[in-house]
Order: sequence, then structure tokens, then C-alpha cells
Amino acid sequence: MNLLDEKEAAAYTDTGVWATKAIKEAKLFGKVETVCSSREANFNYIPKDFAVPNDSKYLHITTNNTIYGTQWQKIPHTSNVLVADMSSDILSRSLDFNSFGLIYAGAQKNIGAAGVNIVVVDKNILGKVKRSIPTIMDYRNHIKEGSMLNTPPVFAVYVCLLTLRWLKAQGGVAAIEKKNEQKAAILYQEIDSNPLFRGSVVKEDRSKMNVCFVMDNQEIENKFLQFAIENEIVGIKGHRLSGGFRASLYNALPLESVEVLVSLMQDFAAKNG
Amino acid sequence: MNLLDEKEAAAYTDTGVWATKAIKEAKLFGKVETVCSSREANFNYIPKDFAVPNDSKYLHITTNNTIYGTQWQKIPHTSNVLVADMSSDILSRSLDFNSFGLIYAGAQKNIGAAGVNIVVVDKNILGKVKRSIPTIMDYRNHIKEGSMLNTPPVFAVYVCLLTLRWLKAQGGVAAIEKKNEQKAAILYQEIDSNPLFRGSVVKEDRSKMNVCFVMDNQEIENKFLQFAIENEIVGIKGHRLSGGFRASLYNALPLESVEVLVSLMQDFAAKNG
Repeated sequence: MNLLDEKEAAAYTDTGVWATKAIKEAKLFGKVETVCSSREANFNYIPKDFAVPNDSKYLHITTNNTIYGTQWQKIPHTSNVLVADMSSDILSRSLDFNSFGLIYAGAQKNIGAAGVNIVVVDKNILGKVKRSIPTIMDYRNHIKEGSMLNTPPVFAVYVCLLTLRWLKAQGGVAAIEKKNEQKAAILYQEIDSNPLFRGSVVKEDRSKMNVCFVMDNQEIENKFLQFAIENEIVGIKGHRLSGGFRASLYNALPLESVEVLVSLMQDFAAKNG
Repeated sequence: MNLLDEKEAAAYTDTGVWATKAIKEAKLFGKVETVCSSREANFNYIPKDFAVPNDSKYLHITTNNTIYGTQWQKIPHTSNVLVADMSSDILSRSLDFNSFGLIYAGAQKNIGAAGVNIVVVDKNILGKVKRSIPTIMDYRNHIKEGSMLNTPPVFAVYVCLLTLRWLKAQGGVAAIEKKNEQKAAILYQEIDSNPLFRGSVVKEDRSKMNVCFVMDNQEIENKFLQFAIENEIVGIKGHRLSGGFRASLYNALPLESVEVLVSLMQDFAAKNG
């Protein structure tokens, strides 16, 4: 709405549920060229070889795909404006933020309570569309009013403040990135070495935020799920679209929790191997 | 966006800052006929005699005007669909809610914490515009998804639950309406009888939520403001557009607080009369 005129085209990468939703919404405002998709493989990888037309107004990516457990480990180089939905991995790793024209993210994963969205935008890409944008949807108005155009959701904003202070005290993004890598590494290592489990996505595209894995059949998956619940692991069941299991390792999750899960996977294999 | 096509017209009543903002936004989507305005009198009354064209898609009112302290005491009868911004007096009084086609309100006055909006809409008036509406802005999608189309701002929603339970325990809207009438009555009575103060709006249109009043000159207003602050009354200064003072008597404010203010006004008059 802010970036694309009706007769212009934008390039989108189709890597999962939220990427697909972004495509659907963009089509309301202009032409959309889906430059790559991993849909044919149930989104189990991040496409690498794709071309972005020079006249694309921007290239849109979803940096982490929560449901399928993939993540862009390398942000694509492009001469086009780069737009990213970072809802599920913002502030989890160091990136060259200067390479983005627009970043948007819901705060409810790594930043704070549900109810706040964060938008970081290069002012220079705004103000170039012809349509009338409702005041509340026009990023220029939010910039002008110091992000207080509307009555801010004060509690949710305050929780962001507390979370950001906590993140700073941890050593900031660089430090949390190392912890996140460590958490993901021990869990993927267990998945790769334990005969009962296997990762559900291509190794090089594995997400460090959402670790998705499956077992040989539904029966043993049910059994492991029950075992996990008995041992007070909650929310480990995978999304119905991807099946199996999903362990979300957002910033707030301590290493110890991952160690407990790994240990349970080992116990389960010893008893059921 | 949901109700008005580009070539259609809607009728708007211009009774204050938020009413004017509603007009500005509606103009992005269709034709707007401003059927009445009290702007020439700095919005110190609610217009009574105005005609709404039969072909207006709807009539829009702002039931309470916080900045100027006016309120529609009688909701206008109309054969058109009635649309109301009730942000600042929703759940403060009994109304015939069946007479509205659409009610919208920010929750932050009488319902809960900032960050939630409430929309009550007659399904039959939706789905009649030709434009493409972004998914998140289309009321039909929120209805379809049981108001959980997006990740809900859970804390703010929870505060609404607690506030609604509290309201129910008070005896509901009918009971709180009586309390609100009592609060407003004792304050307006003081304003009308105290020689130092006078109400700033036409009596019959006085708001029971926001009581606006002035004094003879800036000097004495500053003196009273200082006196109020010394006595731990906060937030009594009027909006810069209306000047003077504004006492907001939302549901959460107890009668005792109004009694303290009235008593201070009497003390001040005794010392400065």
C-alpha cells in the first residue's frame, strides 16, 4: 500500500504460510511476480537460484518461516529495494540492516507482548505511490508523529522496553545470536544422531528459531508426544501443515530447556529404539 | 473503506476533533457531505436541525466529544444506516443499540487498556463495496475468524475482561449510567453556582464524560490549576484547543474524586471570590 502502485510490479519469494499471505495482500495493490517458491516440496527449503526483474519495485522475503522451520541463512543480494517480514527472527541474529529498505515484524516472538508491530523503513522509498493511503496505514504519518500517531498500546510497548533492556544486559544481539546458535546446534545434533528422529527441512536452510522434526510414523510420534507432555514439555507438537514436532527456540528460551528436550529424546530412544 | 464506494456519498456531523478526522478519512473512499457543524462556535454545542439526504450510504456521528465536552444526549433518528464513533462514552449509558449499523470505539476509556478497538457491526451492511479491502481491514474477515484473525493483543484483551466483570458487578451499564449522571450532576451544579467558574458548552449538550469549564481570565485559571495540583488533582487542564479545564469522569472514576474536586472549587472560591 505504501510502496507499490497499481501498474507496478513487485517480486515475492514464496517460502511458507506468511510469505503466501504477503503475496495475497500485495496483489490488492499492484502486480506481483512470485520469483521463486518451495511449495512443491512442502516448503522444506529456501530457493537459491532465482532472478529478480530490474523493474521490480522491491523484493520481499520472509526471513524465517515458523511453520516449516526454514530460515534465510544468507539474505539475498539485490539491487532492488529489499523488504523483509522478520516477525519470527528479528533481534535473534546480526544482519546488515543497511541492506533492507523496509523491515516489519510483530513483536510477539523476540521483542515483547502481542499487540505491537515494529516497522523500520528507509524514508526515501516512501511517498512514491499515487493512491490515497488511510492516515493510519501511511508510514510517513507514523514517522512524523514519532510513532505516536494513535494512542499507543502502552502495556505492550512497556514490555518491549523491558525485553530490550534484558537483551542489552545479555550482551545484545551478537551475544544472543551465539546462544541461539548453541541451542539450535545441540538440538539438530540430537536429531541427526538419534535414530528415531529426522529433521524435516534441507540442512543448510534449517531455522535456528523453529526446529522442525518428524519420526517414522504417526504411532511413534503420538507416543513421543505423550512422553514429552508427561515430562512437562509443552507446545512441541508441529503445526498441522507440517506435522511432526516443532521446538521454538526464541530468544527467551534458555539453553537448559533445550538440554532437557535433548535428554528426553535420548531417554525415549533408549526405551523405544 | 468497508461501507462507502467511490461514487457514493455519506453524511457526517462535524462536532469536534475526532469527527473532523473521521470526515478527512472518509473522503479517501467516497463523497462526504458534512450535514452539520458547530465549528463556528468552537464546537460548543451539538447541532440539532440538519437533514440527511436519502441517498447517503450512512450517517456518521461521534457520540461524545472529549476535547470540547459535548455529547449527543439524543441519538438522531434516521432512516439511513447509523455509524457511531463511541470511543469516549461506550458503556457509560444505556442506548438503543439496535438503532446503529456500526459502532466503533477504542477501548482505552471505559473498557480496558489501550491497544484494543471494539467494532460492533450489522453483517447486512457489509460486502456491498466494490473495492479490494486489505484482509486486516475487512470486517468480514474478523467476523469469520471470531475476532482472532490476527494474533490478539492478549494482555489488553484480558484487561477488558476484568473491566467488564467489574462493570457487571457494579450492576452493569444501567447502574454505571446512574453513577455517571450523579458525578456529572454535582460537578455541573458547582460550576453553575460557583461565581468563579462557568461551563464552556451549551447546557443541553453537556457531556457526562468530559466536563469542560473556564474562568474569567488566564491569571485566575493559572492560580486554580496550581491550587488543584497542590491538592493532588492531576490531568485537570483543558486541551489546548478548548482551554480552561476538563474533568474526565469515565466509568472508573469514583464519585469521591468528583466530591474532592467540588470541595476544592468551593475552597478556592472562598479564598479568591
